[in-house]
Amino acid sequence: MRDVFIVGVSQTPVNKDAEVRDRYVGAAALKAALDDAGVAPARVGALYAGNMMSGTLARQQQLGALLADYAGLAGVEAVTLEAACASGAAAARMGYLSIAAGAHEIVAVCGVERMTHVDHDTVTRALATAADWELEGAGGESFLSLNAQLMRAYMSRYGVRAEDFAPFSINAHRNALTNPNALLHKAITCDDYLASRVVADPVRLFDASPICNGAAALVLASAEAAATLRRAPRVRIAGSAAATAPVALSRRADPLQLAAVEISTRRALAQARIEHRDVDIFELHDAYTIVCALSLESAGFAPPGRGTRLAVEGGIGLDGDLPLATFGGLKARGHPVGATGCYQLVEAYLQLGESAGANQVRGAERALVQNIGGTGATVVTHVLHRIA
Amino acid sequence: MRDVFIVGVSQTPVNKDAEVRDRYVGAAALKAALDDAGVAPARVGALYAGNMMSGTLARQQQLGALLADYAGLAGVEAVTLEAACASGAAAARMGYLSIAAGAHEIVAVCGVERMTHVDHDTVTRALATAADWELEGAGGESFLSLNAQLMRAYMSRYGVRAEDFAPFSINAHRNALTNPNALLHKAITCDDYLASRVVADPVRLFDASPICNGAAALVLASAEAAATLRRAPRVRIAGSAAATAPVALSRRADPLQLAAVEISTRRALAQARIEHRDVDIFELHDAYTIVCALSLESAGFAPPGRGTRLAVEGGIGLDGDLPLATFGGLKARGHPVGATGCYQLVEAYLQLGESAGANQVRGAERALVQNIGGTGATVVTHVLHRIA
Repeated sequence: MRDVFIVGVSQTPVNKDAEVRDRYVGAAALKAALDDAGVAPARVGALYAGNMMSGTLARQQQLGALLADYAGLAGVEAVTLEAACASGAAAARMGYLSIAAGAHEIVAVCGVERMTHVDHDTVTRALATAADWELEGAGGESFLSLNAQLMRAYMSRYGVRAEDFAPFSINAHRNALTNPNALLHKAITCDDYLASRVVADPVRLFDASPICNGAAALVLASAEAAATLRRAPRVRIAGSAAATAPVALSRRADPLQLAAVEISTRRALAQARIEHRDVDIFELHDAYTIVCALSLESAGFAPPGRGTRLAVEGGIGLDGDLPLATFGGLKARGHPVGATGCYQLVEAYLQLGESAGANQVRGAERALVQNIGGTGATVVTHVLHRIA
Repeated sequence: MRDVFIVGVSQTPVNKDAEVRDRYVGAAALKAALDDAGVAPARVGALYAGNMMSGTLARQQQLGALLADYAGLAGVEAVTLEAACASGAAAARMGYLSIAAGAHEIVAVCGVERMTHVDHDTVTRALATAADWELEGAGGESFLSLNAQLMRAYMSRYGVRAEDFAPFSINAHRNALTNPNALLHKAITCDDYLASRVVADPVRLFDASPICNGAAALVLASAEAAATLRRAPRVRIAGSAAATAPVALSRRADPLQLAAVEISTRRALAQARIEHRDVDIFELHDAYTIVCALSLESAGFAPPGRGTRLAVEGGIGLDGDLPLATFGGLKARGHPVGATGCYQLVEAYLQLGESAGANQVRGAERALVQNIGGTGATVVTHVLHRIA
């Protein structure tokens, strides 16, 4: 496979502005990423869009072709990738594969989602399409209730308390304070966390990521194409892997083991030829604090039942052993679902390029970036390497 | 890029049985294709699903992971590709790229769609999400009305009459008679065509493809992997290309020129190193008869305004110069939208392998297979070669 580089990025501020439609915000993100890369639209061979709910919530499918038109990429190959909340990274992986294959030299990737133009019940029902409709959604389960199930089971099995999850949320909120693209700019304490409303026992408001809108974009290039750009490439996609598990929790051997996290992490690290101790940053999918704990365990950073210890012991801050959610994560930067995977990759790119400003993790050279669809059904994992 | 072969296929009979849900019919198609290839599930590296409307009509997204589970492909990479009615071929193209890149040795592709479990208005609205909602759908345009616009404009510009479109429909219905997987088994005459109800002037019932359900699947493999199977590969994907045009007709320079058909056909033929005269079969996207005429012209088989002449002059039958819709096409085999691109590839595979039975085009060695999303916004084109 050919080497693939990230040569430009952009992100729009995560927001709750219901008026800005996908095509405009997506096109703006794409144009900004191309500008950042110094790539003329005519050089772009393809556009891969990540989106989950435009068909359901905005009656608009075929976003790939639509965004290509509005971003000035007339004629290019374009398609939409859907894997629920992992749609953004799935789009990036397709971009990666198309260049690795030699089908294209330069491609654009855009994750976009709009969720706040409909009422809360409508978006809750739309999010439940990421679950198994027959076995979960039709019976009234929501995305929130399924994560509450996981959190209850985890607390019960391992004897973990509510406050043990707080550090994930506190860390995300702290890191978002200095991220102008984050939705939430509000530091929280453990007392704030414990005082926050229980939205679905035991999930508190501060365990859950907010409903919001956003778009982020990346430009990927082959080595040959990257060499022609005004700026030498700074980040290589050293590993890319995807894996799945049954969509319904009831069809998994153990719902507290995220098999697709385990498989895709192992493959991505192996492809990148690094080990866990080499990972400087883990941009994980903190849609809920329970997902942080499960991800750390299934990815191999902590033994079963010990995921929250990593956070309690303070190793997840910007200066910790394993910084998480360095720009605020899904929890505080926000989780516009189909866009999230692209935001994560953009943020990791900024970290490795030493362009993360106040959020910079010093000396970051290798980032693990993980985007999860559903309660762990689709997991797309990338490893980014800073170029020496 | 590495060579990619089709090593197994399957198709379920196109139907109007509303009870059979996507996961079961899709899994059945996948298992049958793996059986046909003689591939054990454990050897499959990824599953790419093509689907347009499951989220909207069945509240089920993340079909990739869902189908992987139900087809016994636990853990594999899986994702859903969406490009409206071109979703099936978009999934096949992703499978192609993943093997060409060297990321996988064997992958499965499945197109699936269920449309008959909801009322006619609901499916009409869902199909309109393939159009531009802001510029077309919100104003009341449906997929049918947009194709009627195209047909009116075409008849007016070129002085073509209604009966000139009849041969496309007659040919499709004739070929479907001997296809057990076709939805419609009814020969029609030009008189039948002209007597059929006008559903949106000038589109008659016999110009339009039916609303239906279906699933079709393919197994793709690298040369190395194909060599390990019980049957030597018979068909190679010699060309694969995708292109887009603006989604809304009003944003195109000339709606009667399908720019994405032109671009993707040119690229796919060039990659396969063949010319128009080398094409033995053209499985084109005959969702409406007007699309046949426009496709033949934009793909370069007929000059502008002369697409219907090819049909009138009788060259599109199984023994013609350019056989079209050899198993009945979208018109009579049926058009379960996200599955259609996979049915087309399966049929072309059967033709090149001389397994087409009563529908066999004698001596067919090269097939052009084209799947279109919307009114020409996304076009995915493949060239299949029979292996000498």
